[in-house]
Amino acid sequence: MMMIAMREDATPAQIEEVVARLAAVGAEAHLHMQGSVATIAVEGDREAVAGLPIEVYPGVDRVVTLLRPYKLVSREFRARDTVIRMGHLHIGGGHFGLIAGPCSVETREQTLSAARFVKASGATGLRGGAFKPRTSPYAFQGLGEEALQILAEAREETGLPVVTELMDVRHLDLVLKYADVIQIGARNMQNFHLLAAVGQVDRPVLLKRGLCATLEELLMAAEYIVREGNSQVMVCERGIRTFETATRNTLDISAVPIIKHRSHLPVVVDPSHASGKVELIEPLSLAAIAAGADGLIIEAHPAPETALCDGAQSLSPVAFARTASRIAEMVAWMGKTLG
Amino acid sequence: MMMIAMREDATPAQIEEVVARLAAVGAEAHLHMQGSVATIAVEGDREAVAGLPIEVYPGVDRVVTLLRPYKLVSREFRARDTVIRMGHLHIGGGHFGLIAGPCSVETREQTLSAARFVKASGATGLRGGAFKPRTSPYAFQGLGEEALQILAEAREETGLPVVTELMDVRHLDLVLKYADVIQIGARNMQNFHLLAAVGQVDRPVLLKRGLCATLEELLMAAEYIVREGNSQVMVCERGIRTFETATRNTLDISAVPIIKHRSHLPVVVDPSHASGKVELIEPLSLAAIAAGADGLIIEAHPAPETALCDGAQSLSPVAFARTASRIAEMVAWMGKTLG
Amino acid sequence: MMMIAMREDATPAQIEEVVARLAAVGAEAHLHMQGSVATIAVEGDREAVAGLPIEVYPGVDRVVTLLRPYKLVSREFRARDTVIRMGHLHIGGGHFGLIAGPCSVETREQTLSAARFVKASGATGLRGGAFKPRTSPYAFQGLGEEALQILAEAREETGLPVVTELMDVRHLDLVLKYADVIQIGARNMQNFHLLAAVGQVDRPVLLKRGLCATLEELLMAAEYIVREGNSQVMVCERGIRTFETATRNTLDISAVPIIKHRSHLPVVVDPSHASGKVELIEPLSLAAIAAGADGLIIEAHPAPETALCDGAQSLSPVAFARTASRIAEMVAWMGKTLG
Amino acid sequence: MMMIAMREDATPAQIEEVVARLAAVGAEAHLHMQGSVATIAVEGDREAVAGLPIEVYPGVDRVVTLLRPYKLVSREFRARDTVIRMGHLHIGGGHFGLIAGPCSVETREQTLSAARFVKASGATGLRGGAFKPRTSPYAFQGLGEEALQILAEAREETGLPVVTELMDVRHLDLVLKYADVIQIGARNMQNFHLLAAVGQVDRPVLLKRGLCATLEELLMAAEYIVREGNSQVMVCERGIRTFETATRNTLDISAVPIIKHRSHLPVVVDPSHASGKVELIEPLSLAAIAAGADGLIIEAHPAPETALCDGAQSLSPVAFARTASRIAEMVAWMGKTLG
Repeated sequence: MMMIAMREDATPAQIEEVVARLAAVGAEAHLHMQGSVATIAVEGDREAVAGLPIEVYPGVDRVVTLLRPYKLVSREFRARDTVIRMGHLHIGGGHFGLIAGPCSVETREQTLSAARFVKASGATGLRGGAFKPRTSPYAFQGLGEEALQILAEAREETGLPVVTELMDVRHLDLVLKYADVIQIGARNMQNFHLLAAVGQVDRPVLLKRGLCATLEELLMAAEYIVREGNSQVMVCERGIRTFETATRNTLDISAVPIIKHRSHLPVVVDPSHASGKVELIEPLSLAAIAAGADGLIIEAHPAPETALCDGAQSLSPVAFARTASRIAEMVAWMGKTLG
Repeated sequence: MMMIAMREDATPAQIEEVVARLAAVGAEAHLHMQGSVATIAVEGDREAVAGLPIEVYPGVDRVVTLLRPYKLVSREFRARDTVIRMGHLHIGGGHFGLIAGPCSVETREQTLSAARFVKASGATGLRGGAFKPRTSPYAFQGLGEEALQILAEAREETGLPVVTELMDVRHLDLVLKYADVIQIGARNMQNFHLLAAVGQVDRPVLLKRGLCATLEELLMAAEYIVREGNSQVMVCERGIRTFETATRNTLDISAVPIIKHRSHLPVVVDPSHASGKVELIEPLSLAAIAAGADGLIIEAHPAPETALCDGAQSLSPVAFARTASRIAEMVAWMGKTLG
Repeated sequence: MMMIAMREDATPAQIEEVVARLAAVGAEAHLHMQGSVATIAVEGDREAVAGLPIEVYPGVDRVVTLLRPYKLVSREFRARDTVIRMGHLHIGGGHFGLIAGPCSVETREQTLSAARFVKASGATGLRGGAFKPRTSPYAFQGLGEEALQILAEAREETGLPVVTELMDVRHLDLVLKYADVIQIGARNMQNFHLLAAVGQVDRPVLLKRGLCATLEELLMAAEYIVREGNSQVMVCERGIRTFETATRNTLDISAVPIIKHRSHLPVVVDPSHASGKVELIEPLSLAAIAAGADGLIIEAHPAPETALCDGAQSLSPVAFARTASRIAEMVAWMGKTLG
Repeated sequence: MMMIAMREDATPAQIEEVVARLAAVGAEAHLHMQGSVATIAVEGDREAVAGLPIEVYPGVDRVVTLLRPYKLVSREFRARDTVIRMGHLHIGGGHFGLIAGPCSVETREQTLSAARFVKASGATGLRGGAFKPRTSPYAFQGLGEEALQILAEAREETGLPVVTELMDVRHLDLVLKYADVIQIGARNMQNFHLLAAVGQVDRPVLLKRGLCATLEELLMAAEYIVREGNSQVMVCERGIRTFETATRNTLDISAVPIIKHRSHLPVVVDPSHASGKVELIEPLSLAAIAAGADGLIIEAHPAPETALCDGAQSLSPVAFARTASRIAEMVAWMGKTLG
């Protein structure tokens, strides 16, 4: 459904031309006149109509599309919550997932240590980067396959499923060999070939919202994956870019209830990247749960002050234990189950 | 404290000129050379240094000010939470305020009805607009003094203190005659003469964050009020403007813990204006409490579908009762007292 | 004209309720069904329909308003360009205004000196602040009436009309006594009582866009003024707030052709506040003229490095002379007349 | 160079810990006390210091990095403008490039027709998409290799070098076989593996700014390419995402003079994607040239109303001819050479 508002000075011939163009693609156009202003309500095949550059016709003032552009991920398509299940990790439909671990895998000791303490404090999944997207080419870029092997060893010992980022479609097989959940990072949310690629495999995907992506675009990106056949997708709110400089990004807490309302996919919140500050992790985590989130992904490190990346936003073992305990209480208060 | 980075190609004479200018206003300049790059650390009287247009000097690359520009509202100035107390309304220091009521006072019946049902559901303060800032000159602008009289009558009956907006310094006496808390709206957050005026009276002020204001600017606006002598100030996060269109504004939930960390002033959250959608009021209210807010201000109306403004974001009596009940539970869970 | 999209799962009774509510305010509702989705096209009195909180009705998905909310300032209302004429200053309809001068009046000597050199380089109007809106209560706030007297003296000598900011409705008479053009600053763009007040006097108004205001809101603010009877309004693009930190604000250059397209009011650009950097003043000034601007307002100071405010973005006499010369050439190239 | 501001309540032990940590990585720390506030100026190896999570240490208030994080693309590294030369296309160092053509290659006839008319009107390069990044998986995704063959045929006939987008590192060889300039789209500006890949080939790259990228991040992305050995990089301003809805994006015109100031790379402006509206292409093109741009990339189509993508922002042959003529005049006025 599309609505077209013509300019007040649009001529009858201009109005006629628009109506004729719509008819040519098989759409039905209903014309309304109010005083000297014409509006046209358009019905017809979604894709045929969406492709028309109606704004370019003389006399057209504005065009508004009323239908949401995604289908498979919408709540209308599937009313029941999608649930992701894999080892300790259950996310969605009343199950709450607590994924934690270091920004990047630095050493075997650091990662095993992190896996142990987050497990001990109640985490249900382990995060850790093997390939790191870094703004600077001079920054640490990750250990690659060695990191994946270390993560697999940590899973072996703790039983925690491993969540790790895939940046490059050429690494898909490698990541599939080791990871339980494939993370698509914020910078790749609209890397459409990468989305299509993970849509063709049988492995859960954690899709992060781009720094500047609208919620509609996030759901469209999820649609890219689901449309290829992989329906095990969770979306992750991790902060958007605004003018505020007190935080690294601005956590869009409203994203949680809105996505829950519009889609059946689980919603995970990343308070670490959203805020960039350890002192905000706990309040933002509790807020996310209270807003209805299905999971959290939190950076934690055995010794944040030595971390090769994101040390300023990584919780220490003591801080993580305290925060995880509050998280568990709030999850219970909301009537959900951790794990 | 200010830091100056000179350009790599700055000449010794250019560096010397900056140092001399700083000396001329009584500041101390410490010069560091790293390879060919000079940086200058500046110490001295805050205001003398802040007024210097150092960026304009040849050879200067960047200037960074390290000290926060507010004093009286900072946590460093006063470690203990400021508490606002007035009738039912206690906000800050473990007391949680729940202010509710209609966007604007439309009729005596509507306002009394609203006051009764929000009181019955646990509200501790009554909001209602007498003077309305409206984007369109053709929209309802408020009933003025008649509205203030109606609000006073509602307070008489329910005991709820009245929170109402002051838009124009010429109405200050009128508002003081009837209101318990003076609200400064988002559009007037940097109306500095209005801030100074309410700083000179003995009445609590609820200061809303501008749509595009940083947290530092919000605290600076509070400083304008406190500096005139009125320390009974609460600040209100009500959403900022971003590219996201799914909500009216984007609630910056991180503002809550950040302000609590940097300032002793109580923080109130307005989920109604932040979201513009009734279905988001409850999740955002719970999130705000979980993040550490000291109060909420929520729009409620006996019959939202007939409201003259903000009907789409106003809770009905039934919806308000349900939400207020969840709010009360979460306030208790956080170890705070409602009222 | 309003369009309502119902949810796919909206019931016939819900659809009926919306249609009935519209009928109750005298609007005509045309219902379209496409598959299971209903949309409703609404015609009727603009204000009656705009006030309805249709989003609040059960089953409603989205509401879109198609008509622009302003009238008197629209190009449809008046096809011919509004022209402001006052002494040297002609703005609009092929006349280009070059307003220049210091951020604030600091001393008689500084202001007279500035007036002389900007006049000598081709300026057609003099700017200078008597009342300064400052983020910090500790910053210089302006000299008040003394500054207005100095500006009047500078006009006496140079013949340049004076543009100065009005911040407080209580100073209107004072400003009217001395100023030729009343400036409404960005922070007061939605100070609706102030807008109404300057709408009731017979003096040109320069209305600056708020840091976070949409172009529609800017034109609505202009509508507030014009509706009260004062049609001598120019609007000013001065940069909006974005995530970019390399400039003080982001100059929205597209605002120029868009406003020229939608409104008959002249458009002035302020490159000084938009960029905050002297080295950007000339390229942004030329860009503004090329984009169709009707005028510029530029900060210039006899000795920027001693300025009490905005020194980093104020042009020196030499720099202003060079830039003004390029401006004059570009104005001629665009087929407009300076003054 | 980094500056650290400690909190007012930081203890001597906390200050000592930070200084010791800096010493441990070989950096020199200069401590200043002003009253009770300590600041620390840090000198040392850029990468060693940048990796430290100083914010995480107790007592630290803020950390500010003063040096720019890119090197090879900076004006300091190379003072002389980089010039791209390839057939008709010369960009940089006084040469202005006018790249035009359709959003996507739809048919042989459409593309050849577009190439002919843009050439006839003065274009020096041909754009056209073979692989299209589309927000919706249901939209036209491009013709792939067939499109590249058509573009090569158009080059054969017109002599115009071909600019086309590379989305997927797996298509690099294919694109290299046909294209003269590799475009990296806005959504891939931080696809770091793709950047590294095009950094290893000998072919000019047109790097578009991400919708939400700062200028510093854009230059960092360029650094990724140049660092791998390919110095033939031009950067493209194509609008950023803001709250304004009157345009598709907000053209950040200040980006042009800022990048020219900080970097030796040529700057190209894309008014089509920045605005999304045909009526803005000419004013924004002229503004870009006036601001100092080295080139433009403009969408043009033989019949915009039938275009499969971006029809609303594509110029028709007549409109392109008129705009290209004004562009040529303005380029000459700025003292540059077209081609």
